[in-house]
Amino acid sequence: MTLKATINQITVNSLSLPEAAAAIAAAGFGGITVWRDKVEAISVRAAKDIISDHGLAVTGFCIAGLFTRDGRAGVQARIDDSRRSIDIAAELGARSIVTVVGGLLPETKSLDEAREVAFEALARTLEHARAAGVLMALEALHPMYAPDWSVVNTLAMANDWCDRLGPGMSMVVDCYHVWWDPAAPAEVARAGRAGRLSDFHIGDWLLETKSLLLDRGIPGEGVIDLRAWRDGMTAAGFTGWAEVELFSERIWAMPPAEALASIRVACDRLLSEAE
Amino acid sequence: MTLKATINQITVNSLSLPEAAAAIAAAGFGGITVWRDKVEAISVRAAKDIISDHGLAVTGFCIAGLFTRDGRAGVQARIDDSRRSIDIAAELGARSIVTVVGGLLPETKSLDEAREVAFEALARTLEHARAAGVLMALEALHPMYAPDWSVVNTLAMANDWCDRLGPGMSMVVDCYHVWWDPAAPAEVARAGRAGRLSDFHIGDWLLETKSLLLDRGIPGEGVIDLRAWRDGMTAAGFTGWAEVELFSERIWAMPPAEALASIRVACDRLLSEAE
Repeated sequence: MTLKATINQITVNSLSLPEAAAAIAAAGFGGITVWRDKVEAISVRAAKDIISDHGLAVTGFCIAGLFTRDGRAGVQARIDDSRRSIDIAAELGARSIVTVVGGLLPETKSLDEAREVAFEALARTLEHARAAGVLMALEALHPMYAPDWSVVNTLAMANDWCDRLGPGMSMVVDCYHVWWDPAAPAEVARAGRAGRLSDFHIGDWLLETKSLLLDRGIPGEGVIDLRAWRDGMTAAGFTGWAEVELFSERIWAMPPAEALASIRVACDRLLSEAE
Repeated sequence: MTLKATINQITVNSLSLPEAAAAIAAAGFGGITVWRDKVEAISVRAAKDIISDHGLAVTGFCIAGLFTRDGRAGVQARIDDSRRSIDIAAELGARSIVTVVGGLLPETKSLDEAREVAFEALARTLEHARAAGVLMALEALHPMYAPDWSVVNTLAMANDWCDRLGPGMSMVVDCYHVWWDPAAPAEVARAGRAGRLSDFHIGDWLLETKSLLLDRGIPGEGVIDLRAWRDGMTAAGFTGWAEVELFSERIWAMPPAEALASIRVACDRLLSEAE
């Protein structure tokens, strides 16, 4: 089983959606994962046509969630906003929407409270996603993002939440976030058995990471045993896209075509290598 | 149960050991945790006398481990070096030596291999520590340090390793490293039942952390619910020192007396507050 590669448009963050779609297609990728702000900058209809004209699949949509960011008083607005994102994802034909639940509540240091509030908000958003036919792909983020981005920090937590939430949930496995976790391989297998592996991100962790937010590596540049992750995902039954999503000031400073060419070579090496 | 506060001398990294002991005692703390390079800069005998003259307890010693750092070929030298550190810790009267096992092996991306090599090296060092009467205090480091500092990244792993290694092992609970982990409270209780809670570090996680290595916060400056951690530790039977160990360019740029005064106020607030 050889996985196909797709590009998250944040990787070429300086480009508009039409520019990104053209560059990604020119670099030989078959898909694009889009961000809502870039879609809305040109209209959903225009985005859909442009992506289609370039022969690209919409391999994902970013993002739903951040439920806790504005405190308890702001949860309903975040749910409403996520519902709108789900509608756009559905209109674009995305199978799943990346779901990042949010970090601590500004009013308390309690992780438990943040997790409870985020869980309940996700449950209420899920009904809408089910009706729209879009999977909510829950993404566990690295523990260093617990304060401000996500209090779901391991694949075990993501699996537990998906178990409790039921149909309509799926999972993002992002190696950058979970590679260090000794329980991760078993949790990938568990997610596979539950049929909930929808998204696979293959960014790398650089040995001398300079920024918590903006210093991810091209597959192969860093320390993660991505071949082992690839094999674990395919063994768990995953047949979707391997997505490169690089928040990186270094990559963003490169000419986009050059960055995409390097990523293309890295993906070919990683995804076509024998096990 | 009110815990007493101690200072890890890295917090006043610009000072020599004599200067640090004087400043820490003047700020009203009762203990100091020392680093080997600072001790050896003046001789072990002189360090012991100076610390004693200031009425301070030696509340810890840094460090043993880093077994994997130079690859498999370098493990024996790291073990030998750790044994020497243990001897110095014993001579100073330290009850425990902070043990940081090391990150990935330079020759492979396999976390499993790094963990196996580190575990075996620790087992071989432990014999020496038992004979010297110094506890090897295993410290789980934040997952962001898995590549280069420690492949033990959760309290569950640390507890598992201590179970397997047996007598002579203890644990450091450092809130900065493990605060995000939903399993942490149960693992603190587990370590307490096993009688292995020897060290408690109360550095804080800053909301906008600027550096992976050098941006820790004074207790109360950040997002960690340190009162809950304090209560969890005391409920688990911990009666030792609450240690402030700040790797922080910001703190290091302050006049040491001023930094210690701020930390003193923060510790008084945290440690004397009602539950």
